[in-house]
Formats: sequence, structure tokens, C-alpha cells
Amino acid sequence: FARNATMSTPNATMMQDLLTLDNPVFCCYLFWATVLVVKMLLMSLLTALQRFRYKVSIRQTHKQCIIIFPNEEDLFFKNIEVQFNDPHVERVRRAHRNDMENILPYFIMALIYLCTNPNPSVACNLFRVAAVARIVHTLVYAVYPVPQPSRILAFGTMMLITFYMAAVVALRTLRFI
Amino acid sequence: FARNATMSTPNATMMQDLLTLDNPVFCCYLFWATVLVVKMLLMSLLTALQRFRYKVSIRQTHKQCIIIFPNEEDLFFKNIEVQFNDPHVERVRRAHRNDMENILPYFIMALIYLCTNPNPSVACNLFRVAAVARIVHTLVYAVYPVPQPSRILAFGTMMLITFYMAAVVALRTLRFI
Amino acid sequence: FARNATMSTPNATMMQDLLTLDNPVFCCYLFWATVLVVKMLLMSLLTALQRFRYKVSIRQTHKQCIIIFPNEEDLFFKNIEVQFNDPHVERVRRAHRNDMENILPYFIMALIYLCTNPNPSVACNLFRVAAVARIVHTLVYAVYPVPQPSRILAFGTMMLITFYMAAVVALRTLRFI
Repeated sequence: FARNATMSTPNATMMQDLLTLDNPVFCCYLFWATVLVVKMLLMSLLTALQRFRYKVSIRQTHKQCIIIFPNEEDLFFKNIEVQFNDPHVERVRRAHRNDMENILPYFIMALIYLCTNPNPSVACNLFRVAAVARIVHTLVYAVYPVPQPSRILAFGTMMLITFYMAAVVALRTLRFI
Repeated sequence: FARNATMSTPNATMMQDLLTLDNPVFCCYLFWATVLVVKMLLMSLLTALQRFRYKVSIRQTHKQCIIIFPNEEDLFFKNIEVQFNDPHVERVRRAHRNDMENILPYFIMALIYLCTNPNPSVACNLFRVAAVARIVHTLVYAVYPVPQPSRILAFGTMMLITFYMAAVVALRTLRFI
Repeated sequence: FARNATMSTPNATMMQDLLTLDNPVFCCYLFWATVLVVKMLLMSLLTALQRFRYKVSIRQTHKQCIIIFPNEEDLFFKNIEVQFNDPHVERVRRAHRNDMENILPYFIMALIYLCTNPNPSVACNLFRVAAVARIVHTLVYAVYPVPQPSRILAFGTMMLITFYMAAVVALRTLRFI
């Protein structure tokens, strides 16, 4: 009798388990989202690193001191000026902005996609491919610039995955418009 | 007897169903959040489109080739230079940045608001109005510039909705500070 | 007999309660996330305020009108020009961008961390410290500039908390790679 009650509401039972550690797909999302969050935070440190590196190299070669921090209170050295638009720093900042533009909406989209109870192996593989694509994107954009179309392919991979998830969710929830 | 047990904990039962597809309010959130994610990703494509469009138009009128991509490896054509700060491209980028500043916190705020079990019709209508307001914002900002106050109204609509959700959540959770 | 059935699945029962208002840790997250969302939205208003303040002060001292809005349709006054890169406005915008770079990934990371059922008092204190650190960061960056290392300490506090959460989650979910 108790078994019948459980069998009569299979959907409700499955749904409630979606956002828990009992759901391997959710764990897969947790792991790869964590990887991408760490990657994004490392971009901040990479920007600071670039600022210090080019500050130091300029000092050594030109016996002159131009610092490339945007704020006056960041001038840790004397006899230096505020400078904007260093190309090496700006490249990392563009890569970081691109991360924000793509990875942050992806986090929400993937979480939403998870709630629609997708096929486990499809979902896990999408999470893996998207995360690896963005790591490649950062490498070929900010760390070691590589000729196109490497960056466009890495960029497009996550974008297509996000659009696919959006299509799946939109079709499932269209009647709640 | 079993019925009594269920009746005695109505809150717990309702709460567990909030973040599932059984909850129409959650489905409404899923749909409109998906719409906004897609809208944000299209901004990236619109930026690239603007870059190519103004690149091509300059070439045709001046027989000269100035490309407005920020990275050297993006120069798909020969005899062209890197250029920043094209006004048409920068306008789309400002609109995109504004999206990130407002829509991404809204995603989190709306999800949090959902967890406080709000009135279904109020919540659904807030989601609809907020999403439509941001689509209007993009149209009057990036696609076809319109005189103020159209943009400020569209901008303020989502901001007020987010503040309202924040007030509701803060009042519900104030004792957990 | 019914009691045994409940006892035999303690994990599943605990897990399902994580993302509900019955979980005080989740309520604590809701409250402090709300505070940070409101703080981020106020940055938009602070930027606009800075634009108007310096527009007005220039008008009074120089009898000349230079407006520092980036869009032509935002020129509410006559005889004024579009101007970029006002230092006071750019400082607030950098602070806002830094918020997006750090707080938005933190929202996702903290939510993910919550799903791993962490120690309640540790989690609540992390949420409190992170939120206060970012409020201090905004004060010493955008409102009243203070010499370093105040800003770096405030910045580093949330970053370290996010890395700690990432480490906890990665260790829990490593086998789902």
C-alpha cells in the first residue's frame, strides 16, 4: 500500500532530488561550476600579475618608472605615474570581461537546465565540454595569444551549449509564459 | 492518521516543492530567465555584428580599411589596423555592461525571492514585467537609440522590481542576520 | 516502523531541506546575498549621482557646461558635450566592475557550497564576513578613497572565502568529474 503511494507520484519524487548531492548530474554541475568560478577569480590575479610584471620590466629597461595601476592609492613605488591602457593588461581585462559576459549567464542557464531533469549523460557531457572550452578560451586569449579561429571556436562552444540548454528549457516551460 | 501527519506540516511540504517543475511560479521564472540569458548572449553577437558592419561600410566609402577589433589576431583582412572606441560598437558594449550590472544580480535575487514562497500571481507578473522591461531597454539603447526618458524608465523598472524582491526577502530573513 | 523508515534515509531527508526556509544556513545566505545585491544596484545609482554632481560643480565654477554622460541622448541640458573618462566617475565604475568580477561568482559559489551541507556556524560566519568585507571594499574604493592596503585586504577576504568554498565543494564532488 505504501509502495503504491510512492509509485503514483514518481515525478514529484524525482523532482525533489534534483538539487541534492544524491543526484550525480547535480554533483557534476557543482564540480565544473567550481572549476569555472576558480578560473574567473584567477583572472583578477592574472591582471594584477600583468600590472606588476610590465611595471618591473619597464623599470629595468628604461630606468624609468611607469606604473599601470588605475588608482593613485595603488602606487606602491615612488616617482611613478598612473597609466591606463597598457596592451598586455587590457588583453587580460577583455578576456575577463568576456568571461563575465558568457560564464555567469551560463551558470544560471545550466542550473535552470538541471531543474528540467535532463538526460544525465547528455547534461554531464555538456558541463564538461563547456568548462574545458572556456579554459581553452582563456589560454588562447589571455595567457598565450594564438591566431584565430582558436578563440572563436572556444567561445562558440560554450555559447552553443548555452543556447541548446535555453532551447530545451524554453520548450519545457513555454506554457507558463 | 497518515493524512493528519501530512496536514500538520504544510509548510515543510510546500517548501520542498518550490524549486521543482511542479511549481508554476518556478516554471515562469525558468522561462523568463531563459529569455534574458538568450538576450544577453545575443548582445555578444550584436557587438561582433557592429564591428563587421562598420568595418565593411568604412571600406566601401573610403577605399580604406580600418578594423575595429580590439585584438591583433582578430584582423581577418590585410592592410588594416587595430582600432578602439568606435562609437557604434561602444554603445552596444555599454548596453551589454548595463545588462550584466542589472540582469545578473536580478537572476540571483529572483531565485532567492522564489525560495520565500511569494504570492504566485505577484511573482509571475514581476518576472514578466522585468523581462519585458530589459528587452525594451536593449532595443532603445543598443538597437535603435531613442531619446530619454525611455531608457531610464526601462532601466528603473527592473531595478525597482529587484529592490522590491530584496525588501521582501530581507524582511523574511532578518532574524537570521 | 514508520520511524525506522525515516531513520534509514537520514541523508536524503537532510538534503531535501537544504534549499528551504527551514534551513537557517540558507536563510542566512538569503539575507546576506540580498544585502550584496542591493549594494551592487546602488553602485549604478552612485555612478549616476557622480555624473550629475561633477556636471553641476563644473557648471558653477567655470560657467561652462561639460556633461560626463556617455550617450548623446542623456544630455538633459543644452550647450553641453559628451565627455568620457571623468576620474570620479571612472573610479566608481571600476569599483562596480570589481563587484561584478567577485560578487557574482561568489553568489554561485556560496549557493553551491550550501548544497554540500556544510557546518552551519562556519557557513553563516563565512557569509557574514564576505558580505561585510565587500561593503568595506566599496566604501574605501568608491565612496571615500583610503590608502592601501585597506582595499586589498577587503578584496582578498572575499576571494579567500570563495576559494575555501571552492576547495570544499571540489573535494566533495571530485569523483563526479
